[in-house]
Amino acid sequence: MHSFRNDYMEGAHPYVLDALVSTNAEQHPGYTEDALCDKARAAIRQAIEKSDVRESLHDAGIDAAALQVEFVAGGTMANLVSIAACLQAHECVIAAPDGHINVHETGAIEACGHKVLVTSDSDGLLSVEGIDAVMKFHEYGSNFHMVKPRLLYVSLATETGLVLTAGELRDLRAYADTHDLLVFIDGARLACGLASNRCDATLADVCAAADIFTIGGTKNGALFGEAIVIRNADIQRDFRFVMKQKGAVMAKGRLLGAQFDALFSTTGAQADVPEAVGDEPLYLSLGRHAVALAMKLRETLKNRGFDAFTSDSSTNQQFILLENTTAQSFVHAFDADVIAHPDDAHTVVRMTCSWATTEDDIAAVDVELSHIG
Amino acid sequence: MHSFRNDYMEGAHPYVLDALVSTNAEQHPGYTEDALCDKARAAIRQAIEKSDVRESLHDAGIDAAALQVEFVAGGTMANLVSIAACLQAHECVIAAPDGHINVHETGAIEACGHKVLVTSDSDGLLSVEGIDAVMKFHEYGSNFHMVKPRLLYVSLATETGLVLTAGELRDLRAYADTHDLLVFIDGARLACGLASNRCDATLADVCAAADIFTIGGTKNGALFGEAIVIRNADIQRDFRFVMKQKGAVMAKGRLLGAQFDALFSTTGAQADVPEAVGDEPLYLSLGRHAVALAMKLRETLKNRGFDAFTSDSSTNQQFILLENTTAQSFVHAFDADVIAHPDDAHTVVRMTCSWATTEDDIAAVDVELSHIG
Amino acid sequence: MHSFRNDYMEGAHPYVLDALVSTNAEQHPGYTEDALCDKARAAIRQAIEKSDVRESLHDAGIDAAALQVEFVAGGTMANLVSIAACLQAHECVIAAPDGHINVHETGAIEACGHKVLVTSDSDGLLSVEGIDAVMKFHEYGSNFHMVKPRLLYVSLATETGLVLTAGELRDLRAYADTHDLLVFIDGARLACGLASNRCDATLADVCAAADIFTIGGTKNGALFGEAIVIRNADIQRDFRFVMKQKGAVMAKGRLLGAQFDALFSTTGAQADVPEAVGDEPLYLSLGRHAVALAMKLRETLKNRGFDAFTSDSSTNQQFILLENTTAQSFVHAFDADVIAHPDDAHTVVRMTCSWATTEDDIAAVDVELSHIG
Amino acid sequence: MHSFRNDYMEGAHPYVLDALVSTNAEQHPGYTEDALCDKARAAIRQAIEKSDVRESLHDAGIDAAALQVEFVAGGTMANLVSIAACLQAHECVIAAPDGHINVHETGAIEACGHKVLVTSDSDGLLSVEGIDAVMKFHEYGSNFHMVKPRLLYVSLATETGLVLTAGELRDLRAYADTHDLLVFIDGARLACGLASNRCDATLADVCAAADIFTIGGTKNGALFGEAIVIRNADIQRDFRFVMKQKGAVMAKGRLLGAQFDALFSTTGAQADVPEAVGDEPLYLSLGRHAVALAMKLRETLKNRGFDAFTSDSSTNQQFILLENTTAQSFVHAFDADVIAHPDDAHTVVRMTCSWATTEDDIAAVDVELSHIG
Repeated sequence: MHSFRNDYMEGAHPYVLDALVSTNAEQHPGYTEDALCDKARAAIRQAIEKSDVRESLHDAGIDAAALQVEFVAGGTMANLVSIAACLQAHECVIAAPDGHINVHETGAIEACGHKVLVTSDSDGLLSVEGIDAVMKFHEYGSNFHMVKPRLLYVSLATETGLVLTAGELRDLRAYADTHDLLVFIDGARLACGLASNRCDATLADVCAAADIFTIGGTKNGALFGEAIVIRNADIQRDFRFVMKQKGAVMAKGRLLGAQFDALFSTTGAQADVPEAVGDEPLYLSLGRHAVALAMKLRETLKNRGFDAFTSDSSTNQQFILLENTTAQSFVHAFDADVIAHPDDAHTVVRMTCSWATTEDDIAAVDVELSHIG
Repeated sequence: MHSFRNDYMEGAHPYVLDALVSTNAEQHPGYTEDALCDKARAAIRQAIEKSDVRESLHDAGIDAAALQVEFVAGGTMANLVSIAACLQAHECVIAAPDGHINVHETGAIEACGHKVLVTSDSDGLLSVEGIDAVMKFHEYGSNFHMVKPRLLYVSLATETGLVLTAGELRDLRAYADTHDLLVFIDGARLACGLASNRCDATLADVCAAADIFTIGGTKNGALFGEAIVIRNADIQRDFRFVMKQKGAVMAKGRLLGAQFDALFSTTGAQADVPEAVGDEPLYLSLGRHAVALAMKLRETLKNRGFDAFTSDSSTNQQFILLENTTAQSFVHAFDADVIAHPDDAHTVVRMTCSWATTEDDIAAVDVELSHIG
Repeated sequence: MHSFRNDYMEGAHPYVLDALVSTNAEQHPGYTEDALCDKARAAIRQAIEKSDVRESLHDAGIDAAALQVEFVAGGTMANLVSIAACLQAHECVIAAPDGHINVHETGAIEACGHKVLVTSDSDGLLSVEGIDAVMKFHEYGSNFHMVKPRLLYVSLATETGLVLTAGELRDLRAYADTHDLLVFIDGARLACGLASNRCDATLADVCAAADIFTIGGTKNGALFGEAIVIRNADIQRDFRFVMKQKGAVMAKGRLLGAQFDALFSTTGAQADVPEAVGDEPLYLSLGRHAVALAMKLRETLKNRGFDAFTSDSSTNQQFILLENTTAQSFVHAFDADVIAHPDDAHTVVRMTCSWATTEDDIAAVDVELSHIG
Repeated sequence: MHSFRNDYMEGAHPYVLDALVSTNAEQHPGYTEDALCDKARAAIRQAIEKSDVRESLHDAGIDAAALQVEFVAGGTMANLVSIAACLQAHECVIAAPDGHINVHETGAIEACGHKVLVTSDSDGLLSVEGIDAVMKFHEYGSNFHMVKPRLLYVSLATETGLVLTAGELRDLRAYADTHDLLVFIDGARLACGLASNRCDATLADVCAAADIFTIGGTKNGALFGEAIVIRNADIQRDFRFVMKQKGAVMAKGRLLGAQFDALFSTTGAQADVPEAVGDEPLYLSLGRHAVALAMKLRETLKNRGFDAFTSDSSTNQQFILLENTTAQSFVHAFDADVIAHPDDAHTVVRMTCSWATTEDDIAAVDVELSHIG
C-alpha cells in the first residue's frame, strides 16, 4: 500500500531524474556557477514574470531580470541562510507560534543568534493584527531593552494546510513597508499553496510581497533542493558569503541547476500532468496534482464517514481526528503520521499526497477504508 | 578537452547513479532513518573493520558495531557540524595555517562561535611539535584569558597533496590522549590520501586516530554527500540535534544512503576499476584510480619539461610553477586552476585528476603539451 | 520628592561605599584573584551555610566549602554567562513567558545561540506543570527535530512580585533531577524575595534547589555587581573561560570583592537596619527593609483608596491600576514607572522601594496622595 | 614595596572617587540616561574638539556634537560590543597577530561569530602593508569562499609599548576609505599612547581616523569603565541594542558618568598632576604621569645596568630581559610580571607604571636595584 506519511517519501519526478542522468557525464564548474544553474535561474525568473496576472511586479517596481536566484540542498538550510542574511546580530524575526522555524528546526535560527518572536495568531497564519501587537509591545523596535523586530517569517501554506490570499500578502507587505520590516516567505510547500483553491496568489504575488522567498523542490518533484529568490538588493549583496559560511554552497551546484531547470523549463503539459493549466511550468503542475489528489482523498474519507478534519486544509496535507484504535488502523494501512493526542481516547493523524500519489492510490484507500470503517 | 580544474566537475560514478535511479520510485522514511542508509552504515562499518591490518581498532578498543555513521550533503557542512558537536562555546580547534576550515570556509567555524587556532606548521601537515607549541602558549588550556584548545583538525591529505602516515596518525592520537584533546579528521579527499604511495594508513588507522572523521563522497564518485563516522560516545549522544540545528539533516536521507551503499557495498573489481585491489570497496578503488592518473599526469608533465612542481604531491592534485604565458596556455588547454602568483612573472596552476579522468585524457594532455612546450 | 521609579536609583549603602573608599589606595591583583574577593567568597559561603534551617544543604549533599563564587558587574551579564555555561550549542532553557531573559534582555540568550522555550504559566512563576507540558511536547529531549530542553530559568521573586516557596523550589529540583535538567535561579532581587512574608525559603534552600544561582547586589545595596554561586562541578570547571569570553571578568575584581564583603561580612544589626533579624548579613537586612517599606507603601495606597493592585505583590515592587490622569499625577509626584495601558482609560504604574527608601519617603507619599485623591 | 605588576592594581584617582562619593545619595535614572552621563559626554566631545590642532576633524568633516558617546564597564566588553556592532555575521576583523582581541580575550570576538584575520606584522603595529597583503589574499572581499574583511582593529599603543603616529593613523584611514573597511581603535591605554613622546597624534586625530574608538578609564584613573566614541552614523543607530544584548548596559550608568565627568571636566592642573599641560583634562594628564614615571623607571634600570629592553617602549610598560635568578628578584621586589621565557636561562619581565605610581616608588626601585645588581 502507498505510504501517505509525508510528501518526501519518493525520489524525483522522472523528468527531473532524467535531467540528472543525461547531464551526469558533463563537466561543469562548481558552486552553482555553471550553465545549468544559469538556465534554471532564467526559467524561474521567466515563470515569475509570466505569472504576473495582477501586475504585482509592476506595481512593486520589480524587474524580474534583477532577481537573484540561489540554490541550496534543503529546507532548514534555505530558511536559516535566508533569515541570517536579513538580520543584524541584535535583530529578530516574527513568526506565528507554530511556524516551522519556531518548532521544528531545533533552534536553528537562535543558533544564528536571533530570537524568534511569536505572535498570538492561533491558526498558524501570520496576521497583520498579530504582528502589530508584537511591534507595539516592542515599541516599534525603539526600546533597546527588548529585541528589535526586523523580519516577518511567512508561510504561504501553513503546517495545517491553511493559505494566505493575494490580498493578505499585500497587507503584510504594506505593514512591513510602513514599519521598517523585511519579509521572508518560506516556500517549502509553495506549489501546493499556490494550487489551493483558496489561494488566488501567483508566483508574482509572492515575489512582490517578499524581500526574499524560497521555492521548495524537495517536496515537489526534485530529488532535493530549494531555490531562493532575492529581490532586495541589500540582501543580495553578500548572500553567497552567508551561504558559504553556513555550509550551504554545494560543490556540484549543477545538480540543483539541472533539477530546477527541469521543473521550470518543462511545462506540466509536456510531462502529461493531468492537472496542468496552460503552459505553466512542471513545478506548478505538480503542486496542482498533489492538491487535487488530496482533495479526492478528503472526499473519500468524508464519504466513508471519517469527516472529523481538525483543519480546513485546502492543500496536500489532511488532518483527521480518530479514535485511538482507528488511528492505529490508519497508521498500519496508510502509514499515516501521528500528529497529536488531544485526549486519552483520540489521535490526530496526517495523510499527505504528493506529486507521486496516483488516482489508484486513492482508490486503494477507499477500499481499505471500507474494511476499517 | 577534459577539464583538470578540480575533482568535482563530473556527476556520479555510474554505479552510484544507478543506485539512485533504481531506487527512485521506492518510498522511504526521511531523515536518514531508512533501509538504504542502514545498509550503507553497515557497509562502511564493515569496510573499516576489514581494513584493520595493523590491529589499530583492537589496540584502541574500538568495536566497529558501535560506530555511529551519519550522512550530510557537503564538505563544509560535514566540517562545521562535526566541529560544533565536539566543542563547548569557549573551546577552540587547532589547525594548520592552510587548513581548509581556516582559509576556505568563510569563517564557518567562527560563525559557530569557535576560534581556529593555527600552528606554525609551514607545510600544511599538522605536527605534534606545532600543536605542542600552541598548547604551551595557552598553558594547556588552564589560562582563562586565552581560548581553551580542545580539538585537533587533521587532514589525512593536505590541500597541497601531502599525506600523513599511520605512525603520524598514532602520534597525534597519543598527544591528544595525554592533553585532553579530541581529534577530528577531515576526509574530504580521504580516498586519495589512502591511495597515496606515501600513506601506509588504512581506514581503520584513521578511525583509531579520530574521535570523529568524515568520508568524502562528493569528490570521489558520489553525486554529493559525506559520511561522518563517530566513535566517541560523548559526541554521538546528541549529534543529530547538532545536525538538524545546522540544517544538515536531509529530508530524503535515502539519497545519501543509496550512494554510500553503492560506494561501499560494491567492490572496485565488480565495477572494473583497473586499480582495484582485492575486494576493496569501490570507494577506495576510485581513490586509487584518481591518484594513479595524477601520477601519470605528473610523469607526463615532467617528461615534457614542466617539472617545477611546487609541492611533492602524492595525491590527485598536482601543482606546477609556470611562466605567466605558459600558465595561460594551461588554463586555456586544460582548464587548469590558477592558485597563486609567487612573483610578477610566474603563476602556480593546479591540475586535478578524479575518479572520472581517463588514460585518454592524460594522453591528450601529452599531445597538447607538445604544442605548448 | 523621592523617586519610586525603580530600585537602582541610588548609589551604594554607606557601608558598601566605605569599603570601596577605605581600600581604594591598596594594590590588589586583578580579575577577582585578590584577598577582598576571597573574603567575600568566604562570607557568602558562610551565610548560605548558616541559613540552612531546613537542612536543605545536608539533604542535597552540598558542602558549602565546595561552592564556587564568582562576581560580575551586572544582571544581564550574570544571566547570560550562567546560562551559556550550562548549555551545549543545541540545548535550550525553559522560562516563564514573562521571564526577564525572555522579554527584557534584547535576545541576549539567543545571541549566545540558545532558544528560550516558554511555558504557558500565566502568572510568571515557573511551575512543574508548565515545564512538564513543554518537556512532553519536546518528547523529553529525544526528538532531534525540536530543540533539546536542558535548563530551567527560575526567579525566586517574579517581575510582578510573586514568590516561590521552599516547597516549590524543592519540587522544581525534584523534577529537574528526574528529567536530566539543570536549574538556574536568577537572584537579581533575591534579597527581596527572601524577605517576602510569603516566601519561607532561605539562601540555603535556594542553593539546594539550584545548580547555579545569582545574588544580586546592584538592586540591594551595592554600587553594582552580582555574585554567582555554582555548586555543580561540571559548570564550575570552565566557568571563568566563559566569563572572560563574554567580557564579564572585571580587571579590578577587588571592587566586587570589597562590596560583597561589606554586604555579607557586616550584619544588618551593625549597620542599624531596623528590620535586621539576629546576626544576618547586611545583604539580607536590606532586602527586609525594602520589602517592609513596600508593604507600608501598599497600606498607605490602600488607605487613600488606591487599592486596585494588579498583582498580589509581597516584595518591593507594587503595581497599581489607575485612571490615566491619576497615573500622570503619580508619575509627576513619585516618578512612578508606567508599565502598561490595559485599556484606553487606564494605566498600570509601578512604585518600587529599595534599601534606600525611608519612612519619611512613605509619609511624604501619604501627604501627596491626599492631594491627588 | 609598590607593585609594578600592571596598571590596574589601585582603585580610582581621588577626584574620581570623590565624584562617586559626592553623588552617591542622589537618585538618577538608569542605563546611562542620566545627567552625569550627559555631562561626561559633553566633556569628552569638548576634549576631542579642543585637541584638534591639526584640523583633522575639520578635514574629515566631523561635527563633534554628532559624536555618540557610550559607557561600558570593562575593556573586553568595550572591544566585543564595538566590533559586534560594526560587522554583519559573515564579516571579519583584521588585527595584528598579538592584538589583544586575538590572544587575550578567550575568543570573545569569535564567540560573536566573527573571525579575527591576522596580518604578518611582526612588531604588533598594524601596518598598511600588512593589511593590504590580507586584502589581496582575500581578493578584496569578493571571493565568497573566504571570509570577508570589513574592519581594522587598531591599538594606538601596542601591548609592547609601540605607538602609531598621526601620519600612520591617517594612512590607515585612507586605506580603509578606499577599500570599504571600517576602523576601530582600541583605547584601553589611549592616554599612555597619546602621552608617548613618539606619538604626535591627539584625541582628535584618533577620532578622525576611527569609525569608533574607546577611551579606557580602568587603566587610567577610573575605578572601572571605558567610554566608546562612535562617529559613524550606521554604527550609532542600533548601538545600544548591541550593548544591551551583550550585557554591557549598566543599570546604574551614573557610575560611569560620574567617573568620566571627573576625568574630563577636571583639568590635570586642578588636580595638581605635575605633568599636566595647559588646561588639558585630568584624563590626559594622568597618562602623561604614567608615561613620565615609566621613562624615569627605564632610565633608572638602565643606570643600574638592566638595559636589555626587549621593546623600545615609549609608554607606561617596560620589558626587560633578565637572567632567571635576577628575574625572580624582580618578581619578589617589584611584583614584576613574568611575560616570557625566551630560552632556558632568561626571563622577560614587565614593569608597569600607572597614574598612581610616585617618584618615591621609582626612587625605592633604584635603592632595591642597588641590592639586586
